[in-house]
Amino acid sequence: MEEAARLTESIKELLSGGREERLGQVLEDSYPADIATVLRELPVPERVHVFRLLPPTQAGAVLSELDDQTLLELVRALDEHEVSRILDRMPPDHVVEVVEELPKEQADKILDLMEEEKSEEVQELLEYPENTAGRLMAREFVAVHENATVAQAIEHIRKAATGDDHDHLVGLVPLHRLLTADPTIPVRAIRTEDVETVSVDTDQEEVARLVQRYNVIEVPVVDGSHRLLGTISVDDVIDVIHEEATEDIQRLGGVPGDETLLDPPEAVFTKRLIWRMINLGTAVLAASVIGLFETSIQALATLAVFMPIVASMGGIGTTQTATVVIRGIALGEMTSGVLRRVLWKEVWLAFMTSVANGLVLALIAYLWKGSWLLALILGVALIFTMVVAAVAGTLVPIALRAFQVDPAIASGVIITTFTDVFGFFSFLGLATLMMRFLL
Amino acid sequence: MEEAARLTESIKELLSGGREERLGQVLEDSYPADIATVLRELPVPERVHVFRLLPPTQAGAVLSELDDQTLLELVRALDEHEVSRILDRMPPDHVVEVVEELPKEQADKILDLMEEEKSEEVQELLEYPENTAGRLMAREFVAVHENATVAQAIEHIRKAATGDDHDHLVGLVPLHRLLTADPTIPVRAIRTEDVETVSVDTDQEEVARLVQRYNVIEVPVVDGSHRLLGTISVDDVIDVIHEEATEDIQRLGGVPGDETLLDPPEAVFTKRLIWRMINLGTAVLAASVIGLFETSIQALATLAVFMPIVASMGGIGTTQTATVVIRGIALGEMTSGVLRRVLWKEVWLAFMTSVANGLVLALIAYLWKGSWLLALILGVALIFTMVVAAVAGTLVPIALRAFQVDPAIASGVIITTFTDVFGFFSFLGLATLMMRFLL
Repeated sequence: MEEAARLTESIKELLSGGREERLGQVLEDSYPADIATVLRELPVPERVHVFRLLPPTQAGAVLSELDDQTLLELVRALDEHEVSRILDRMPPDHVVEVVEELPKEQADKILDLMEEEKSEEVQELLEYPENTAGRLMAREFVAVHENATVAQAIEHIRKAATGDDHDHLVGLVPLHRLLTADPTIPVRAIRTEDVETVSVDTDQEEVARLVQRYNVIEVPVVDGSHRLLGTISVDDVIDVIHEEATEDIQRLGGVPGDETLLDPPEAVFTKRLIWRMINLGTAVLAASVIGLFETSIQALATLAVFMPIVASMGGIGTTQTATVVIRGIALGEMTSGVLRRVLWKEVWLAFMTSVANGLVLALIAYLWKGSWLLALILGVALIFTMVVAAVAGTLVPIALRAFQVDPAIASGVIITTFTDVFGFFSFLGLATLMMRFLL
Repeated sequence: MEEAARLTESIKELLSGGREERLGQVLEDSYPADIATVLRELPVPERVHVFRLLPPTQAGAVLSELDDQTLLELVRALDEHEVSRILDRMPPDHVVEVVEELPKEQADKILDLMEEEKSEEVQELLEYPENTAGRLMAREFVAVHENATVAQAIEHIRKAATGDDHDHLVGLVPLHRLLTADPTIPVRAIRTEDVETVSVDTDQEEVARLVQRYNVIEVPVVDGSHRLLGTISVDDVIDVIHEEATEDIQRLGGVPGDETLLDPPEAVFTKRLIWRMINLGTAVLAASVIGLFETSIQALATLAVFMPIVASMGGIGTTQTATVVIRGIALGEMTSGVLRRVLWKEVWLAFMTSVANGLVLALIAYLWKGSWLLALILGVALIFTMVVAAVAGTLVPIALRAFQVDPAIASGVIITTFTDVFGFFSFLGLATLMMRFLL
């Protein structure tokens, strides 16, 4: 990050000093990712200016590093011919990453202006749905017959011949084995036996899981007859892992998974609003529970003071539990065989911590309001609520998963409503039952 | 995951049928990660039994895939001699991953029983602090002088000679370039010019960021004089990325970052409790604000019904904002140059959505309680609270970051308290000012 910050400073300086030549040099020596960071901080005219100073190959690499919003603004300001010339020099799978973010009309125009062969390859990749292995794969790979010798294989790679024989995939040969093997033996002897493969429509999340789980660093994409169509490299997979983590984190926070920091507010307004409206609905539902006890509150306004504490403690309990469970589901650790153990852990934790919390809360309530009975009711309601929160926090995500709903999206709302309602109900209900002793 | 589920089924079946030989075969053909998933579901005696059926190299690979709790239970049940024999066959950096999870006494005993050379290598790695590049690096690498020819370099690799000459690192040579280059030219001509390096005490998160940002797939670890000490491979980095994502997600949910699904409850009790106690403190603080308005609530209990709605809406607003900002910080996108844009986006969103939410809430309140004034007060308090929530949700994480505090840990508590207090205060305050018109 610091490198990007330093680069930003020096580029801004060179720009204002009009030192174009030096600027060109600095850009040539910088990493595309760092240049991308600089570009998003510049106003559009200067962004275009700096971008045009980049050497063509560098320009392509920078385009694939840009966040969606900066990319859109930049491409809108550039000439379509200019963009297509840059894309011509990029590998098809990287072109796809750029083109898929553009408005359809503009994307079509740019694809039309590109070299025919490259443009066709890109369009073929674009036919695979977003977030699938097909979109990610590079179609340049080297394939040799398993009876070829090591020397022949190396010769094949030297010629940079791409695989065009559509035979069954029978194994992979790590380069270091090829390099160190006796040149006269067949590659069959040094290939791996079992290869994990995916199909073009495998979800990218599944590809990432495969890489993490089995430590593979290049995933072959095959068709129904196990013929090799392309390969997915580990740096694409790392990007996917980041994307998916962002998605999970944002969904837990009630944000649509694909929002980025610099999205224009109008673009995310509807999605944010939907979530806030749902929250309003559930908050009104919880309020209606309080409404049932309005007479009790009228009689003893102190209840209104303590009531949010119980709900808030149910909230933290449920958040902690659901967070661990949802992450466990995402990592594939939450299998049916361990459900009972997890449930027991969470209920134990809820009970033990809420006894401690309940004692402290009861003490505070007694010191504040002087009523032992009120303190007792608070403590008991707290324990009730937190145990119920632990059960809900464990079972709701699992149930959602079983119904094919992403637990990260819906768990928060459902469980919070549940614990709010239960928290208000248990405390106000107990207090109402004991009302004549409280007054 | 399905593969692991199928494997679990068939292993349980073979175990209960006593078909040991077939079981051994199935295990030999399975991936270590899948076997690890099976082991955690088995009760300890059967876990030990199955583990002992594994071929020695497979056993080591399974050990490094196990989650901490399952590993602890398994090693406790095994003989130390047995464990040390397995560790002897593993690469030192993988042995470290196992040994660092064990209680000190047991770890020392096992290290004592291991082959001397391997044990020493492991102990050297263990001297680097946890979560640093030093712990992650493999010390087996091939280094040649830049004046060596390609043919000499390949010969060097064939001999599997590890780098022992402590010269400056001047570049890396990708294997495919070595393979396709003219054997008579010096490697100098095909090496990369700029290499991103880390030192042994670089934080693993920084290593992961480097890999993601610059698409490198092997990170060299160097000392102060730029001498090569080891390399970190991409599959270790992928594990780090997952670990760090888990940490971020858990911290956002108020859970210590290193908790796993199956940790025994006693082990996480204290950390969970601390968080719940902090939450209790902030909830009491918010309640004390309500306490200021007890007379108003006594006069009009309806206020208690609506009061949590305003706080809850402040909560969702702040959660959405802080989630995007905190993830932006983690991804390095939240630079000072874009702060104003982000703040404007969030305030705009807060205002526009809260006007929509406020209208709906006011309508509900009017239909329910029949008071236009109460409806108006609710709507205004909601807009106030949500705009303040947006500002706090943006600035608090950034401020924490500036004070070197992980924003994922502390933001939640601070911001929630803030919006709770502000929400209660604005609604109850406005209502109290207008009380004589409300009654």
